[in-house]
Amino acid sequence: MPEVLFLPDNIRVDAAPGSTISEAAREAGIGVSHPCGGRGVCERCTVFVEGRPVLACTTPAPQSSVFIPDAIRLATQTILKDVKIYDPKHNRQPRVERVTVTLDPPTLIEPASDAERLCAALSARYGARAQIEASCLPDLPGRLREGGYSLSPVIRHENDDVCVLSFHSDPLYGVAADIGTTTVMAALCDLGTGNVVDTIAVPNPQAEYGADIITRIVYTEETPSGARKLKDAILKTLSDCIGIMSARAGIKPESIPLMTVAGNTVMCHFLLGIPADYLRREPYVPAARIYPAVRASELGLPLLPCGRVMILPSVASYIGGDIAAGVIALDLAAKDGVNMLVDVGTNGEMVLSGPGFMIACSCSVGPAFEGSGISCGSRAVRGAIDNVYCRDDRLMYGTIGGPEATPKSVCGSGLVSLLSALLKKGVIDRSGRFTTPEDYFTLARDVTITQADVSNLIRAKAAIYAGMSVLVKQLDMNLSDIDTIYIAGGFGSGINVEHAIDIGMFPPLSDGEDEKFEYVGNTALAGALRVLCDRTIDAVEAAASITNIELSIGNEFMEEFTKACFLPHTEMALF
Amino acid sequence: MPEVLFLPDNIRVDAAPGSTISEAAREAGIGVSHPCGGRGVCERCTVFVEGRPVLACTTPAPQSSVFIPDAIRLATQTILKDVKIYDPKHNRQPRVERVTVTLDPPTLIEPASDAERLCAALSARYGARAQIEASCLPDLPGRLREGGYSLSPVIRHENDDVCVLSFHSDPLYGVAADIGTTTVMAALCDLGTGNVVDTIAVPNPQAEYGADIITRIVYTEETPSGARKLKDAILKTLSDCIGIMSARAGIKPESIPLMTVAGNTVMCHFLLGIPADYLRREPYVPAARIYPAVRASELGLPLLPCGRVMILPSVASYIGGDIAAGVIALDLAAKDGVNMLVDVGTNGEMVLSGPGFMIACSCSVGPAFEGSGISCGSRAVRGAIDNVYCRDDRLMYGTIGGPEATPKSVCGSGLVSLLSALLKKGVIDRSGRFTTPEDYFTLARDVTITQADVSNLIRAKAAIYAGMSVLVKQLDMNLSDIDTIYIAGGFGSGINVEHAIDIGMFPPLSDGEDEKFEYVGNTALAGALRVLCDRTIDAVEAAASITNIELSIGNEFMEEFTKACFLPHTEMALF
Repeated sequence: MPEVLFLPDNIRVDAAPGSTISEAAREAGIGVSHPCGGRGVCERCTVFVEGRPVLACTTPAPQSSVFIPDAIRLATQTILKDVKIYDPKHNRQPRVERVTVTLDPPTLIEPASDAERLCAALSARYGARAQIEASCLPDLPGRLREGGYSLSPVIRHENDDVCVLSFHSDPLYGVAADIGTTTVMAALCDLGTGNVVDTIAVPNPQAEYGADIITRIVYTEETPSGARKLKDAILKTLSDCIGIMSARAGIKPESIPLMTVAGNTVMCHFLLGIPADYLRREPYVPAARIYPAVRASELGLPLLPCGRVMILPSVASYIGGDIAAGVIALDLAAKDGVNMLVDVGTNGEMVLSGPGFMIACSCSVGPAFEGSGISCGSRAVRGAIDNVYCRDDRLMYGTIGGPEATPKSVCGSGLVSLLSALLKKGVIDRSGRFTTPEDYFTLARDVTITQADVSNLIRAKAAIYAGMSVLVKQLDMNLSDIDTIYIAGGFGSGINVEHAIDIGMFPPLSDGEDEKFEYVGNTALAGALRVLCDRTIDAVEAAASITNIELSIGNEFMEEFTKACFLPHTEMALF
Repeated sequence: MPEVLFLPDNIRVDAAPGSTISEAAREAGIGVSHPCGGRGVCERCTVFVEGRPVLACTTPAPQSSVFIPDAIRLATQTILKDVKIYDPKHNRQPRVERVTVTLDPPTLIEPASDAERLCAALSARYGARAQIEASCLPDLPGRLREGGYSLSPVIRHENDDVCVLSFHSDPLYGVAADIGTTTVMAALCDLGTGNVVDTIAVPNPQAEYGADIITRIVYTEETPSGARKLKDAILKTLSDCIGIMSARAGIKPESIPLMTVAGNTVMCHFLLGIPADYLRREPYVPAARIYPAVRASELGLPLLPCGRVMILPSVASYIGGDIAAGVIALDLAAKDGVNMLVDVGTNGEMVLSGPGFMIACSCSVGPAFEGSGISCGSRAVRGAIDNVYCRDDRLMYGTIGGPEATPKSVCGSGLVSLLSALLKKGVIDRSGRFTTPEDYFTLARDVTITQADVSNLIRAKAAIYAGMSVLVKQLDMNLSDIDTIYIAGGFGSGINVEHAIDIGMFPPLSDGEDEKFEYVGNTALAGALRVLCDRTIDAVEAAASITNIELSIGNEFMEEFTKACFLPHTEMALF
């Protein structure tokens, strides 16, 4: 059993015979990023065994020291601070609440059981069927008599029923989570006031099994109990998030009666341990689109054991519960005019809503704007250039971490600006070809963009524009007919909309329009929070109200895509 | 830490400091009976420490040998063989079944998720809402495609809904259990055919905490986590029963999708860990009368984790789910004429049914017929006299175990016969007083019945008759109007009805009647089995159809009881 010393952490572990360096590192609590799923293909997991570079995913754990560079570690990201929760409706109708009921004491003549009398009182109050969780019955007789036949149960409203969950007297908090492919964000919310008291953002631990959805699906196909491992990984992280936020708020996690989860279809499948094999094969069918409500105890989450975990339903295979949540967060159906929600990641999802319609599509954008597949690309980390602009005919840039941070890479929003600047300066032409003798451009020391990078970025921005175009054409409309475009998600936060319009990723403002774009933050988490708090919101209904436009049927998307593979577009009149 | 050697078992255990002999014996896997709940009151748990008699419940575990006599051990009883399952109705409608459905393969045009297509097919078939347990979703995509879009899920019908539980292909068995205060009986039933393939009867392990219901309630009141301990004890025993029957039938317990449980109200409370304190205090109110359906995993039973455990509802505090089960087993509501179900234990429960009515009452009989409180009394164990009769003016008797078993005691049915014989022979008069110079009678060596015993037995039989009388008088009827009296439960099995009539425990046959009494076995288990198999049986409705007559209100019962404290009765005209 080799003893491995991990550096610079100085952690020793006894590695199981035959285990790889990655596996031993996991034992040591060090997460190593495996963009290819640990198949030895991407060569991104290089570590150093006594100075020699080797791949962590395929090299057996040695009886020696192993140095793991920061660059390949799964790292905790900055906590999202600007989750926008839209005001709950007037006359709040909480999904879970504490109510006080006073019952008539039993007599020999009216000897109904405690449970029957409590249920009758709740039924009368809410005009609903009432029931009691078996797990809280042991507390009922004592609580009822201690309180002189008045008691304050924690109840959940579900469909038209009322269910008594607990008689605890702790403050009522709920948890909402957005399981992104890359990042998991969660919020702790006071169910009494609807206020978010804490948020947390951590890397999705499944990244260790593959950076993107497809790699993870392949992992589950090729690994026995692979789906189980992905499930365990995400549940461990959700448990940690619940534990950390509860500790910070000074509450008991086991008093939390409700959790809502939004995520794309694959993330939701993995949360329940469901293989997603058929989602990547035509006709791209999920195992489930609407997820059964599960008990916290079933998932092993450290909440009130009989508490519910509600997973928001998908609209279609590639329009997940995160998008349904976005529509809920924005209350898109209730907005005047014609509006669009755009959420860009490896996939771009768009929802177009207007009087009497709500349609959506999803298109593959690729990981270019997430910094992957671009030689100088990275996520929005310290040292990443996040803005590029022309001043006095010179290219200037801003770096995350400020002037003292050495620029090392360009993140998604920086790449949009860079493309815009290169076009403006004439370094590239409208087709994206370099006009300079060299077919690359060096922005800073070690930060160079190549012809292949530019082509990749053009394909990515073209996909976004084409998706939006197809959607409006379904209704014989133009992009200029849209009143507001809501940009959601992490990528959108740093984006310079002007530059995005310059390169034809987004449509231009119409004549006389001052503003068309609004950055709305993490609407997946915000929607999950609204579902958590407000029982009048029916997520299944919201998902069902959205019609999916399947872009892989017909040529429309490909035609729009091809036309958009110019800067800004083949049809200049549009810009 | 004293090392105790238990004899004659020859088991050594290291007893925890301060623990009693009883606790050390439990550690050694030896159950000791504590009729008083281990409070040092009844002196029935005498063991021998190096020859000296001490009470196991109060004596600290010594650093020496402890001899535990057979008589005070909790022993496994004979397995009940004669459970009568009434034929299921024609056109069986199983509560859980396996159905084969064939779905249309998905296409790009019709890409509904696997779960939605399965639910739609089941909804169409049963005209019901259909849902799928989260725990079986991981198997769905694979099973569906392996079978060419045909699959055979295990489904449960619940209210008007259908729920998919599993895709396993194991044979479908269910478990029914009757949790008696003294004995737990369970049956394994083939859900496909409705046949009972195995039964088991074991002592209720809660007996260790008290022989009767009241002692156990007191135990939970006086012991921290007492209700939890009683819950754990019965769940351990139920788990063992499931394990043993599954092993004998060669099936996997984790494939069992349904279990039904019948028991008196207190046993059902303890099964869910609910304290029953207020059941023994006026106005005698249970925490719950209708029990929520619970998942097997919630109780930790080794069944299909998402399988249901259905606990049959009580009618009232002292008319439990075992009686509701009896009414279901006999299909009492559907029988012609006027009929009565009588179940005698420490409590006697009676149900009177006829055209348009079904009423029930419960009266305290005391433990006399269970052999407790009678100097020569015992349960129906080897060496117990179970029949006494006069022949040629001599008293003869039969003993359990046959002629080679030395008579040591008299069990319930033997006591009924003995009382009848003593009356016939004139050893006692109609008031129960001994007419002989001695105020006792010796039936065999070491088997003597005293004046106090006779008085106890008369009070017990009078309670039974009085309960039956009050019930018929509610409807201005007489006991002679009853067509059939169904006698249920363990005590009834050995009873000599003629002798029971002789002493006025049961009413006599009417003129011209050949037969009035029918022994129907364990109807609690039989009813639980019917609920297990047949979804047309609504146990909540069955319980609700029975009106409880509370004997503690008014004087009627006491008047009837006083009149019945003669042999056979003060009103001879009735016999």
